[in-house]
Amino acid sequence: MRVDVYPTVLNIPDSSDLEGRVAVVIDVLRATTTICTALANGADTVVPVLTPEEARQVASDNPDRAFLLGGERKSLLIPGFHYGNSPLEYTESRVKGRPILFTTTNGTRAIRRAAGATQVYIASFLNAPAVARELRQLERDVAICCAGTHDQFSLEDTACAGAILEYLGGPETPLEVSDLGLVARQLFRQYDGRLGDLLHLSEHGQNLLKLGLQEDLLFCAQLGTLTHLPRFTAGQVIL
Amino acid sequence: MRVDVYPTVLNIPDSSDLEGRVAVVIDVLRATTTICTALANGADTVVPVLTPEEARQVASDNPDRAFLLGGERKSLLIPGFHYGNSPLEYTESRVKGRPILFTTTNGTRAIRRAAGATQVYIASFLNAPAVARELRQLERDVAICCAGTHDQFSLEDTACAGAILEYLGGPETPLEVSDLGLVARQLFRQYDGRLGDLLHLSEHGQNLLKLGLQEDLLFCAQLGTLTHLPRFTAGQVIL
Repeated sequence: MRVDVYPTVLNIPDSSDLEGRVAVVIDVLRATTTICTALANGADTVVPVLTPEEARQVASDNPDRAFLLGGERKSLLIPGFHYGNSPLEYTESRVKGRPILFTTTNGTRAIRRAAGATQVYIASFLNAPAVARELRQLERDVAICCAGTHDQFSLEDTACAGAILEYLGGPETPLEVSDLGLVARQLFRQYDGRLGDLLHLSEHGQNLLKLGLQEDLLFCAQLGTLTHLPRFTAGQVIL
Repeated sequence: MRVDVYPTVLNIPDSSDLEGRVAVVIDVLRATTTICTALANGADTVVPVLTPEEARQVASDNPDRAFLLGGERKSLLIPGFHYGNSPLEYTESRVKGRPILFTTTNGTRAIRRAAGATQVYIASFLNAPAVARELRQLERDVAICCAGTHDQFSLEDTACAGAILEYLGGPETPLEVSDLGLVARQLFRQYDGRLGDLLHLSEHGQNLLKLGLQEDLLFCAQLGTLTHLPRFTAGQVIL
């Protein structure tokens, strides 16, 4: 099984290159952590959209569906939206049974860009071991698509790719790994057991700390707390 | 001093973002190693061009300059060109006093893409310590632009960025380093003293080995054998 790791949205290959492979999209801080959490808490579906305008348009075109609007720009709540991009906001009492329109700077772009793959999973540290188990069963080549931050490499997404590689490989699953995969796995091993330190060290983590979002960092650093496998299919993320 | 490291040509920011910063372009296997070597061996200038056609056109438009044509496509000599992309080909007896038109898949694109920076240096393991000393004296923010391989992260370019960071930092030069810079420095430290192993491990190195180019890998893995500082200015690389 070959596993490629792509560092940012820009580096995700074209649809034709993804065909036949399974894609895994990662944006640890915080889009994919939040999507995993919302679905685990009973949200009906998460629809990634590219802009706040698109979210508002879809919501107003479909009043019967009673969409919740979530996401961020510059890490902050978008005016008129119900919730921001913190996984802590997406509690069961708020999201159970509801569809969510969701737009973030990096994560939702990455999901849409990976859509050409045969299957597209959404991963975070929370469900990384579960995603790895699923990949092992699928026995297809894998494209791990890190969202990165503003088209640049991010420590936390790369380490999460490394976590998936670590749980995926084994004597019965020999892996052929790209250059970034080697680095990612090593980064995860170095911070395994102290992922909170890694998130505090990362540039994106530092920016969230300045906004007072330390609780988000602690939440996003949890490894293997969920076994859910969100999949992006037909324009929406579902379980 | 802030130092950003960009993993591939795609991630190099726009000219407006590079303005005021010093750029360092790295393509260890093999474009920037070859450019450093050719200039150290007395080549008059290296002119990076994007296509073989552009090289042929410039050469035929300027017969009086007696350009040498060098570079590669898919790691091989381009039909009608004098030399390929191996630093071992650019010996003093062949290049002294000659201008060279040079086109490669990743490296020359990276150089042209970085052209918006205030100054643009060309680096490889050969001159990494010398480039770091120069950057320390310039006291400007730095953009280390790894070419990568086919728009993907490469182990060898990232490690070379790490070498520059390692020689640049110090008690008198505190560095603010991007996420990829942290990873790059750690990668270099891990392989310092055995850079040949790193090049053998890398995907691009593996491909060159399959083509029988082991000598090139050994040559490109030499650290600090040159003190030359090639600069890209007005469309050409000079010392």
